[in-house]
Amino acid sequence: MIYFQSDYTEGACPQIMERLALTNLEQTPGYGEDEHCRRAAELILQACESPASKVHFLVGGTQTNMTVIASALRPHQGVLAADCGHIQVHETGAIEAQGHKVLALPALEGKISASQVEKACQAHREDPSFEHMVQPAMVYISQPTELGTLYTKKELDKLRQVCNQEGLYLFVDGARLGYGLAAEGNDVSLPDLARLTDVFYIGGTKVGALFGEAVVIQHPALQKDFRYLIKQKGGMLAKGRLLGIQFEVLFEDNLYEKISYHAIRLADRLRAAFREKGYSFFVENTTNQLFPIISDEKLSSLKEKYAYSYQFRIDEGHSAVRFCTSWATKDEAVEALIRAL
Amino acid sequence: MIYFQSDYTEGACPQIMERLALTNLEQTPGYGEDEHCRRAAELILQACESPASKVHFLVGGTQTNMTVIASALRPHQGVLAADCGHIQVHETGAIEAQGHKVLALPALEGKISASQVEKACQAHREDPSFEHMVQPAMVYISQPTELGTLYTKKELDKLRQVCNQEGLYLFVDGARLGYGLAAEGNDVSLPDLARLTDVFYIGGTKVGALFGEAVVIQHPALQKDFRYLIKQKGGMLAKGRLLGIQFEVLFEDNLYEKISYHAIRLADRLRAAFREKGYSFFVENTTNQLFPIISDEKLSSLKEKYAYSYQFRIDEGHSAVRFCTSWATKDEAVEALIRAL
Amino acid sequence: MIYFQSDYTEGACPQIMERLALTNLEQTPGYGEDEHCRRAAELILQACESPASKVHFLVGGTQTNMTVIASALRPHQGVLAADCGHIQVHETGAIEAQGHKVLALPALEGKISASQVEKACQAHREDPSFEHMVQPAMVYISQPTELGTLYTKKELDKLRQVCNQEGLYLFVDGARLGYGLAAEGNDVSLPDLARLTDVFYIGGTKVGALFGEAVVIQHPALQKDFRYLIKQKGGMLAKGRLLGIQFEVLFEDNLYEKISYHAIRLADRLRAAFREKGYSFFVENTTNQLFPIISDEKLSSLKEKYAYSYQFRIDEGHSAVRFCTSWATKDEAVEALIRAL
Amino acid sequence: MIYFQSDYTEGACPQIMERLALTNLEQTPGYGEDEHCRRAAELILQACESPASKVHFLVGGTQTNMTVIASALRPHQGVLAADCGHIQVHETGAIEAQGHKVLALPALEGKISASQVEKACQAHREDPSFEHMVQPAMVYISQPTELGTLYTKKELDKLRQVCNQEGLYLFVDGARLGYGLAAEGNDVSLPDLARLTDVFYIGGTKVGALFGEAVVIQHPALQKDFRYLIKQKGGMLAKGRLLGIQFEVLFEDNLYEKISYHAIRLADRLRAAFREKGYSFFVENTTNQLFPIISDEKLSSLKEKYAYSYQFRIDEGHSAVRFCTSWATKDEAVEALIRAL
Repeated sequence: MIYFQSDYTEGACPQIMERLALTNLEQTPGYGEDEHCRRAAELILQACESPASKVHFLVGGTQTNMTVIASALRPHQGVLAADCGHIQVHETGAIEAQGHKVLALPALEGKISASQVEKACQAHREDPSFEHMVQPAMVYISQPTELGTLYTKKELDKLRQVCNQEGLYLFVDGARLGYGLAAEGNDVSLPDLARLTDVFYIGGTKVGALFGEAVVIQHPALQKDFRYLIKQKGGMLAKGRLLGIQFEVLFEDNLYEKISYHAIRLADRLRAAFREKGYSFFVENTTNQLFPIISDEKLSSLKEKYAYSYQFRIDEGHSAVRFCTSWATKDEAVEALIRAL
Repeated sequence: MIYFQSDYTEGACPQIMERLALTNLEQTPGYGEDEHCRRAAELILQACESPASKVHFLVGGTQTNMTVIASALRPHQGVLAADCGHIQVHETGAIEAQGHKVLALPALEGKISASQVEKACQAHREDPSFEHMVQPAMVYISQPTELGTLYTKKELDKLRQVCNQEGLYLFVDGARLGYGLAAEGNDVSLPDLARLTDVFYIGGTKVGALFGEAVVIQHPALQKDFRYLIKQKGGMLAKGRLLGIQFEVLFEDNLYEKISYHAIRLADRLRAAFREKGYSFFVENTTNQLFPIISDEKLSSLKEKYAYSYQFRIDEGHSAVRFCTSWATKDEAVEALIRAL
Repeated sequence: MIYFQSDYTEGACPQIMERLALTNLEQTPGYGEDEHCRRAAELILQACESPASKVHFLVGGTQTNMTVIASALRPHQGVLAADCGHIQVHETGAIEAQGHKVLALPALEGKISASQVEKACQAHREDPSFEHMVQPAMVYISQPTELGTLYTKKELDKLRQVCNQEGLYLFVDGARLGYGLAAEGNDVSLPDLARLTDVFYIGGTKVGALFGEAVVIQHPALQKDFRYLIKQKGGMLAKGRLLGIQFEVLFEDNLYEKISYHAIRLADRLRAAFREKGYSFFVENTTNQLFPIISDEKLSSLKEKYAYSYQFRIDEGHSAVRFCTSWATKDEAVEALIRAL
Repeated sequence: MIYFQSDYTEGACPQIMERLALTNLEQTPGYGEDEHCRRAAELILQACESPASKVHFLVGGTQTNMTVIASALRPHQGVLAADCGHIQVHETGAIEAQGHKVLALPALEGKISASQVEKACQAHREDPSFEHMVQPAMVYISQPTELGTLYTKKELDKLRQVCNQEGLYLFVDGARLGYGLAAEGNDVSLPDLARLTDVFYIGGTKVGALFGEAVVIQHPALQKDFRYLIKQKGGMLAKGRLLGIQFEVLFEDNLYEKISYHAIRLADRLRAAFREKGYSFFVENTTNQLFPIISDEKLSSLKEKYAYSYQFRIDEGHSAVRFCTSWATKDEAVEALIRAL
């Protein structure tokens, strides 16, 4: 069986495993106050060209989303997000469990636009019952989105402008950020994200690490006391150095970039093969998640050997499914799948 | 200026004001443990033909919704509701502030159907990521709905069946229940509600009282410790007898019914007049809220003398607005408005 | 039976009942946006000599406490309070239900001192694990306290200074404030409270009103969006004018002051009588709550005719109990009780 | 510098590092639904002799405490704990952030007794204002406690009895459980814990693993839907197998026991040395945390080479500090420290 159903089916890239072994018996202070975390943060700030930002390391994405959002919002405030956004759909109500409503906007290919955000804020402001409604105070987007699409720099610029105008925080979930940075046609860099957002994170779990997300905070109000929030929300790892060490490895020698390119190269290869063989996609994108539409017949033969993630039925006889590549995907695996198509 | 914009523009019906004056210097224990509350609960249980139910009195609707829902759900559970439901739209995220997601379903004329509920539960159950999603555990509906429409007994029966089948609580928000009970064509009685729901409430604030909602709880799990919840959520009135006294008056001599009929008679008169004059309605209903579609020109002349509640634009030149009658509406006011149409 | 067990055993003072009757059929906008609320706020601001403050009306004390505290704190912050404070003991965890820890300090005669607050903040700051502990961010005190004692102006001054120094909000629960203002020896006025606190409230429920607490907010950060919070926490009364009307009456012609003096005069009378007859008090104070220590034998004869609130056992044979006077207490009732002692 | 200040200064025991390396490129499903988690759970259930229990793996202790407690309590309920309990002192209010009050009881050498629990419940039940107070619904204890002491089987038996009698859940935080099981004089086994508690956990983070706590749930009400709670609280590790693999290693060939004995042997050696040299202890215990009382002078020389955790001042000139041993502590380090005393 070859697994393509997600980008977290393996452990970590070998360089990380080696470094963890090498540092295993070092004695360090706990809770992220060690030298590895300090150095990893420094490397990330350099990569982001944003020396005034602060970096914190958390274990996973849901934890990061709930901690950042809880840190930013007052009780009556909510977060605008795509209706397919991870916080809206796949976190068992973690944001609501912090007391905040997710204000879902209908997404177009996984994305929401500055104009949608502006209209939502305007509608709120102009409603005579505005105080009886949740106040929008943050925009949450994913880069790449849950559908593998990417915001362009121009789209992010506009979102930033509308956030400035409406007094909203802009928060980017980068659980798969590496694959976005490496994608063909992407024009959004780490320094762009640091410049345009109030807070974003660089996903490690899906991009080479055993686990870990590096939160990069620009806005001073969100920087303040963030470690208290991490602790309260259960995200402060006792052996915090495990996060520091992993991100040190990922941000030395451009490893994060290199392994992301590997995944994209294989995704592109697979994408081209699907196209050649006449398959269409539920959504077009250039990152590591592919959403081809496949006939039931074909799926039932594929699934004997290849694991994918079922999405939904398109019509009588066809479904959209997801195939992911990752830092760990082998060329042979992709070639075998292509032959099977 | 004559106000039709809501059904809570006046104080209370005279019988209540008299009784409050009469009992003003009685000394009673606080927090709803007085004789008036006891007797009011008894009268309500008789009207509901449901001696095993428990009655509690709260001050307002949002408070009641959040207390009931917080009492019923475990942290990972959410409440299914119409997308125009009061808890989804007009309570500043009070349900999310309790930690729970409102799982909004697209409403048809303000209502959701048993089949929608069933599909939502089935979709949850069958999703391979079900544990990453909020678990539906309660159905919240309003009778009448926010659009003044009514569930039929058959529709409620089906909702009850699907709730039994799926292990959901059924909760009916009766903020305007009196006007529903009195509406032409309504076939749902208080005993029906007590028989078919796990918990519902009888609105006083909009139906003759200064304030107050009488919660009627059937399900033993929701009866347990409910007073703790009322206190914690800030809803336990120190002089609880004020609630008891008001509901005593409303449920002696069928006053609740009589004043509701008054509002409905005037709403029917107004509805007929709108129709005669060729107006159409955004939504047809038989209760005390009317949603006529009116031209901008007409609205600008009406609003000099008559207050209504603006809803939304229908097309270039026309808007839907809301006119409410209530227990306090005067025949003369309605006749004057009709002449002005 | 004559009730002395609390100060909320009757309805409202007659002037309020008359005004409610008089205004009953006025039509007003809902949710506190009416002329009565506006005028009541104005009268209160005049009494407080604090024109830049904002006034909001809520229904009860627990609701007010939880709304103010939720409005002020970020998730990792807590509120310092006396270990006998209402929020710590008698609100079914309403503050914790907002997500915040009550940081209890051992009270001396119901009060906490500036020096205790300073030490708690210092201990927090200096603890190497400070980020693993709840950060103090607000001081909550009651004036009068739950034991009927009063902070002096000097004590409040010092609390204000330490709050400034440590970056804490100062919040005063004035559920029984009238009885404090009227007490012999009190040197803290409404203008003092407005000058020294960030937010405080003037209790109506226990001082002449049917219900209602007037929150006076000085700090701009707490003024912002407070009505959203009221709505979300279930405290926004649909017929908000009921609160406005009551506080209008209480703050016209010094009624709040007059009825408070009545209660204090009778409490003083009763206090003197207890002393004359050789009773001692669990705690000495000058407000409307008396905590005499009484023998079991005497209590068992008293309780046939006079209701008091049992506090706790002092020794084999004696208990502390509470007798309250209020705006509604009759001279005859006090005289009868004195005879019975 | 040699670190004794905590038991989480190193990575993981070599057997775990090897296994993680060995399995690194295995492809597995995510979120704990892999074969390693299944097998680790099986090994733990065997060790607990409790086949009907359910095992879940979480990343850290605070996360585990908040998830278990949120899963168990209704909104008005609280958890009884020692006033030095981790949830009361060192989790930044994580339990309150779930909405629940920690009902702190004064601990004796880190422990609370069945009789204290019984009295607290009785006091709650008999208070006329019981509904205005948080209802005790769970007992939380740590084994070993935060002071390194141990409950005896008899003490646990009594706690179980009072929990049965009062309808409370019994929850044991076993963050350092291995060191308790291995301690001299301990008479509480894993099967005892499974038999006597409703839920407990076996700490991995401080006992040989990189991270990870294995929750063992006996009570069916707590077993239900627990994975939803893990996800909502941010504790569901994408590469869940990392937890499974670590606990597999720890529970094969008694590794958990063996490495715990190692820490205890060295702690005993160090304890004896302190005693010989005339030091007394702030609290006597037999586990891996030592709390000697040391003069300022001695401390200032020790701290040049040996890291300990400062506790608090005992008198002018002496302080209590903490030295921990762990699975990773080297004999040479202990001998060097002993020479330095």
